[in-house]
Amino acid sequence: MKVYEIQSKPESGNLVLTERPQPQLAHGQVLLKMRSASLNYRDLQVLRRTYTAEQPFGIVPLSDGVGEIVALGEGVTKVKVGERVATLFMPEWQAGDLTREKANSALGGAANGILAEYVALPQDGVISVPPHLSDEEAATLPCAAVTAWHALMVGESLKAGETVLLQGTGGVSLFALQFAKMAGARIIITSSSDEKLDRARQLGAHEGINYIATPNWYKRVLELTDGRGVDHVVEVGGVGTLNHSMRAARYGGRITYIGVLTGNAGEVNVFSLIAKNIRLQGIYVGSRVMFEAMNSAIALHTLHPVVDRVFPFSEAHSAFAYMQSGQHFGKIVIRF
Amino acid sequence: MKVYEIQSKPESGNLVLTERPQPQLAHGQVLLKMRSASLNYRDLQVLRRTYTAEQPFGIVPLSDGVGEIVALGEGVTKVKVGERVATLFMPEWQAGDLTREKANSALGGAANGILAEYVALPQDGVISVPPHLSDEEAATLPCAAVTAWHALMVGESLKAGETVLLQGTGGVSLFALQFAKMAGARIIITSSSDEKLDRARQLGAHEGINYIATPNWYKRVLELTDGRGVDHVVEVGGVGTLNHSMRAARYGGRITYIGVLTGNAGEVNVFSLIAKNIRLQGIYVGSRVMFEAMNSAIALHTLHPVVDRVFPFSEAHSAFAYMQSGQHFGKIVIRF
Amino acid sequence: MKVYEIQSKPESGNLVLTERPQPQLAHGQVLLKMRSASLNYRDLQVLRRTYTAEQPFGIVPLSDGVGEIVALGEGVTKVKVGERVATLFMPEWQAGDLTREKANSALGGAANGILAEYVALPQDGVISVPPHLSDEEAATLPCAAVTAWHALMVGESLKAGETVLLQGTGGVSLFALQFAKMAGARIIITSSSDEKLDRARQLGAHEGINYIATPNWYKRVLELTDGRGVDHVVEVGGVGTLNHSMRAARYGGRITYIGVLTGNAGEVNVFSLIAKNIRLQGIYVGSRVMFEAMNSAIALHTLHPVVDRVFPFSEAHSAFAYMQSGQHFGKIVIRF
Amino acid sequence: MKVYEIQSKPESGNLVLTERPQPQLAHGQVLLKMRSASLNYRDLQVLRRTYTAEQPFGIVPLSDGVGEIVALGEGVTKVKVGERVATLFMPEWQAGDLTREKANSALGGAANGILAEYVALPQDGVISVPPHLSDEEAATLPCAAVTAWHALMVGESLKAGETVLLQGTGGVSLFALQFAKMAGARIIITSSSDEKLDRARQLGAHEGINYIATPNWYKRVLELTDGRGVDHVVEVGGVGTLNHSMRAARYGGRITYIGVLTGNAGEVNVFSLIAKNIRLQGIYVGSRVMFEAMNSAIALHTLHPVVDRVFPFSEAHSAFAYMQSGQHFGKIVIRF
Repeated sequence: MKVYEIQSKPESGNLVLTERPQPQLAHGQVLLKMRSASLNYRDLQVLRRTYTAEQPFGIVPLSDGVGEIVALGEGVTKVKVGERVATLFMPEWQAGDLTREKANSALGGAANGILAEYVALPQDGVISVPPHLSDEEAATLPCAAVTAWHALMVGESLKAGETVLLQGTGGVSLFALQFAKMAGARIIITSSSDEKLDRARQLGAHEGINYIATPNWYKRVLELTDGRGVDHVVEVGGVGTLNHSMRAARYGGRITYIGVLTGNAGEVNVFSLIAKNIRLQGIYVGSRVMFEAMNSAIALHTLHPVVDRVFPFSEAHSAFAYMQSGQHFGKIVIRF
Repeated sequence: MKVYEIQSKPESGNLVLTERPQPQLAHGQVLLKMRSASLNYRDLQVLRRTYTAEQPFGIVPLSDGVGEIVALGEGVTKVKVGERVATLFMPEWQAGDLTREKANSALGGAANGILAEYVALPQDGVISVPPHLSDEEAATLPCAAVTAWHALMVGESLKAGETVLLQGTGGVSLFALQFAKMAGARIIITSSSDEKLDRARQLGAHEGINYIATPNWYKRVLELTDGRGVDHVVEVGGVGTLNHSMRAARYGGRITYIGVLTGNAGEVNVFSLIAKNIRLQGIYVGSRVMFEAMNSAIALHTLHPVVDRVFPFSEAHSAFAYMQSGQHFGKIVIRF
Repeated sequence: MKVYEIQSKPESGNLVLTERPQPQLAHGQVLLKMRSASLNYRDLQVLRRTYTAEQPFGIVPLSDGVGEIVALGEGVTKVKVGERVATLFMPEWQAGDLTREKANSALGGAANGILAEYVALPQDGVISVPPHLSDEEAATLPCAAVTAWHALMVGESLKAGETVLLQGTGGVSLFALQFAKMAGARIIITSSSDEKLDRARQLGAHEGINYIATPNWYKRVLELTDGRGVDHVVEVGGVGTLNHSMRAARYGGRITYIGVLTGNAGEVNVFSLIAKNIRLQGIYVGSRVMFEAMNSAIALHTLHPVVDRVFPFSEAHSAFAYMQSGQHFGKIVIRF
Repeated sequence: MKVYEIQSKPESGNLVLTERPQPQLAHGQVLLKMRSASLNYRDLQVLRRTYTAEQPFGIVPLSDGVGEIVALGEGVTKVKVGERVATLFMPEWQAGDLTREKANSALGGAANGILAEYVALPQDGVISVPPHLSDEEAATLPCAAVTAWHALMVGESLKAGETVLLQGTGGVSLFALQFAKMAGARIIITSSSDEKLDRARQLGAHEGINYIATPNWYKRVLELTDGRGVDHVVEVGGVGTLNHSMRAARYGGRITYIGVLTGNAGEVNVFSLIAKNIRLQGIYVGSRVMFEAMNSAIALHTLHPVVDRVFPFSEAHSAFAYMQSGQHFGKIVIRF
């Protein structure tokens, strides 16, 4: 079968198309014939080897995809041949809190990912998806959508009438926009592009702030909230935007930290974290239980993820290059 | 000024119109010229003296109203003359958990209520209301709306995609319907009337069950949830419906108990409370902080409370009689 | 091997010693050579067939035991031969909330229990136990101790300086006493026996109330808390004591409901549930994650469970009869 | 009366003893004759004007003290002349979440503090203290003890058997040690002094790490927790220690951030916040409700705060100088 591998080939962005035998099924595993996959910013970092220090070469990239179950290993009882399922970002994270063991099962990082024609996964590592979604749409859920759901809708969740601040128009932020809309919240979103802000407003954002035109955007957030600050920030910018986010949050507010875009190391002033009793919660995707709850909401609202552009399997390099360009609004998808 | 009192006059439903001097303002109090009031089932129980054992005669009934501030006592700094404000059901419950002291401040129970032309209240016992609401609409908020908000939207709140079961079409249940809709939940509602179920569907309910036609309505709830049960029940029926509600709830589900309609004493089988790890949370209206959060949501969504019928101040008896008839769909209001 | 079965033999308490072949190991299972088991009140109900309506004959009783792993099925990676482990009450409940599927895995109810010389269980269905415990002590943990832990120490847990009310001196209540002591809480305990109250005080209870001498024991609880009521009640009595428990709880208090002793059906007045905003949380044992947290605490404090009496395997009938007599203080254990 | 003021006098550490008339009581205020006060690191920052940008000159320093009520203003109903009470750090923070208004009431910052012979405070701004405490001990509670309580015992609190990491032996850390001990947790503490570590062990710490001898102390923390990391860190060091603290925390762990010692601005790498789903909660002292809960625990356990040294009122300068020296173990107190 055809499969992409991460190799030490800077000239091809470290991404190499190659051949491997179709995977053998272990006890409890299912075989997926992949139909669609989607990219996350993390995947770009993995390719560039800037995600974590110890990334091995030779693994298959990407965590997010949807496929059809075409074979069952011994002992499989929960799914059937013919079902369409998505991957779990961490097949081991079924319920409860994150642990090291669960984190180590993340696809497309330390473990092999899913940019391959066939993928073997434990039956608990796949999940059915709402029927109204196309394969391309369903492929966007495992990382970005579950992350946004975890950030907003788990535990002390975003409530109707509360105000949430979203940053940019990447995958997590647009899912957060759609979920916040569902939950009846007021949405303020930032972007470097007025055109993207317009599109965000069409998706339901109440206010947009161009952070190029308004570099001290936290002041505008304070104005828009009568000086009070927002209830919740979904911080995707990273350390580079965290100082502004803390200024933009209300007393007792919450910041869910997803980070990555501007890096996670930098100068921070956390005085307002204390002075305003702010909670900063790191978010690393989520569990099957969260995914199931999200699926219920997506199905009830017949929500459609925002897919920016679909690339054929053979043009995976272009998909990564397009993500790197930062032009996208929503998710970038690969169709097998 | 004109004022209604609760007196031992069964022939007039214990409700007597009389005269009292306009109240004097103590330090920190404001004087409200009342514009509208609304009835809750509790008010009927207070009149009938079935609410609690130790109800005094001579007090003024009703907790819920809206008025204009016409005078300020010494030391008032937080509100101004001319502001339109609603009453807090418990003027002492500002924030945090309920205590005995806060509970004892409830209007129209142990303490005087607001069915009077002028009412003196502490400045912290009144709250501004969303401007898009009419006086009649705003008068419905203090007890029924705050109770529904507390039941669904505080702490472990109802989330988008979850299913909630509502009982009947009284004030609390219809506010719960509107808030659950805001929050993106799926709504199943029961009623004895198909016509009321139709109206509930128009307000956003997804499913209606006529509990006369379907006395074992919990079975229908289980069918509608693929055998799983609902995430949340807002139990307004009382002990008479609690057994069915526990059967209708999912494993790990929540029942917020508001009670009253069928009484609070009766035969209960709580085995499923254990077996399904269900949480049964008693709800007694709520705090100013909850009221403020609710107001933000009502304002953002320009939500309009469901007012069934408005009676003039002089016909307060008819308002109570109408509530007793059980014909209403939504709130019963008195206009001053 | 020797095994007890539940059969329709009222003359022998429905408990019959018989022979079965040693169990075959499926994928992922381990074989336990049992060393000790312990009884819970539920086991008596299962034998009497009063626990649930649909109990099958022919199953093996008891959920709680400790044994040594003597063989591994294929695919077992998490445990080794020679390890001493306890059973999980619900082998499927690893983490997160209870579900129907997890509940259906409970040992000694719908599924076979562990009163057998050898037992096959999934590797995730066994758990290591603190080394300082004897086999008899370790065998008491899976149901009673985890239930008490779940009731007091999970979620909104009992805090230092809070007051907890415990009922009687059965297994759950004594574990609750020991955990509440660990957590720095004040403990009020009830019993029908002054001698048992003395023993409870020796274990750390601050106050004891003889509910025979003081049938309205809730009044004494209120006195002991300056009229305020307790923060937390661990309700093991069932519906027969629930009314008093609600009276004994403070505004905003918590009652964790474990029930069983006086049955779960009866006349209840839940008015104070509303009036005091009380939370009544049904508790059905707990998950592996809870068991692990409890083990950490037991190990840190070198806590010893209270074992009342140990019966040999051949005298299981006597163990059940002793439980039925109600004379015990703490756990009843069977040694293999 | 005698009173200290903060003035622009660097030569006397900005602290000046002067005379003011005894305060007049407004409605609802009480007059305290001060008996003892205690210092917090914040007070040193306020004197040096490094706490916040906009500190006025002319205010009275210190937030924490205990005194006797010697006069009541009009309308005071909750306290009596002769009662011994402590100050609330923020007189306006009674219950619920922090707000800007509540924060602005903090004594000894923007508002006048209590280093004066007589102080007027609202009746809700004082709180009774456990009788077993000396005045010097009681004076240490309002800021440091409530902060430690808030950090460990509110919301998702520290549980028996969990491990907490404490930093240094200042006021907050030693209260945290005592509260963690009460709550049955395992305690790891750091210090620059082996002698202080010994004293911490005598107070109940299980492990001590000298961060001078072991600059990468997070590695030692990981060793002491079998590689798992601690459940909870009370971060008093500030940004300078935060990176190590995140490394020392377990997956799903909590860091309560109190900061200050090394400053709140600096280079941080928050990758592990995401990767381990860590919660970083800013803590700014706490509410009356928290103070009351803490008092219950202190009374039940007859806990004695660790008072390092007591200075007479006339030697307040020396008390500040002693704090600056960093030699103290526990609280520094001023006796009037």
